[in-house]
Amino acid sequence: MPYGERKTQIIETAAQLFSERGYHATSVRDIAAALDLQGGSLYAHIQSKEEVLWLIVERAAEQFFEAVRPLAESDLPPDEKLRRAVHAHIRVITDDLAAATVYFHEWRFLEEEHRNTFLEQRREYEHLWREMVREGMEKGVLRNDEDPKYMAILILSAMNWLYHWYRPDGPLSPDEIAERFWRMLLEGLQAPVFEVPTA
Amino acid sequence: MPYGERKTQIIETAAQLFSERGYHATSVRDIAAALDLQGGSLYAHIQSKEEVLWLIVERAAEQFFEAVRPLAESDLPPDEKLRRAVHAHIRVITDDLAAATVYFHEWRFLEEEHRNTFLEQRREYEHLWREMVREGMEKGVLRNDEDPKYMAILILSAMNWLYHWYRPDGPLSPDEIAERFWRMLLEGLQAPVFEVPTA
Repeated sequence: MPYGERKTQIIETAAQLFSERGYHATSVRDIAAALDLQGGSLYAHIQSKEEVLWLIVERAAEQFFEAVRPLAESDLPPDEKLRRAVHAHIRVITDDLAAATVYFHEWRFLEEEHRNTFLEQRREYEHLWREMVREGMEKGVLRNDEDPKYMAILILSAMNWLYHWYRPDGPLSPDEIAERFWRMLLEGLQAPVFEVPTA
Repeated sequence: MPYGERKTQIIETAAQLFSERGYHATSVRDIAAALDLQGGSLYAHIQSKEEVLWLIVERAAEQFFEAVRPLAESDLPPDEKLRRAVHAHIRVITDDLAAATVYFHEWRFLEEEHRNTFLEQRREYEHLWREMVREGMEKGVLRNDEDPKYMAILILSAMNWLYHWYRPDGPLSPDEIAERFWRMLLEGLQAPVFEVPTA
């Protein structure tokens, strides 16, 4: 955690409020009130509401990178790499649903410079996934009759939608969801047409 | 279209503004200005900003139902039913990205009664998908070692994320995206392990 305790509290409280009400419907005063502070005293820690939005988005982006990049750059076989990356990506979402909601939706309200940095980081992150997919194709693990771009988008879409429906008190843990989703994606939804002969 | 021309314009303009700026950051005055009207004159057609949000969400919900219910209730084989439903659902999203964005995100700002109706309709719509999946399992088309609930969520997630990334000037048409996504979902991402013997 690169920030002091107070700044971290501000970021987390703001993420909660932004995710519930939306960025524009949340004032600095609301964030302060949720922390039992005076509105003005928040400005000792932050410059603007937009800075807080940026800190939330930047932190979430870092968490996705920290979770997935070591796997992408590892020597694991491509299917195991992707399997673990699916678990890791899903855990970043489920560990902090509020931050994920802000990352996936409210980023559009960033000011231009921050928004451009966000979009650049997101492209870089998607590139990690595309390269994992491409490696899987090259090594004969994934089908190579599809475009790695759309295969990566399909995998990311299946995972990212979690922020809309995942609830911590639901019946499946994040790892169980990751396991099932990855199995369905990898093996496909259709019934097996014939049996593998047993050795 | 069940509304007069002016009301339809209001709904479409508001959907555009809500999707770009968010519901809370858009005022009735903004909607009026985008239509070259006086703010007050909008109230001849609508009661409140929240009513407009509800009209957008309700209309999108209807479009999803109208596109998919006839397929779900048809006598088509389950894989063809699902394939066509994937195309139909994706077309509702891509035909009106602004409305889809409001439907998927801004619904949370509906007032309680409308929000409850929305959630009820969404459950009903998801139920259509779950039943198509269940039928596919029962008829031996889809694998039956997975929970129809999570299989339906996986399919809907893959499609719904389109509102984040689809652009009308992108390289693939909505039908091409639907075709590829459904093929990858159905057949799976892994390389075929062995060949089907040719007859």
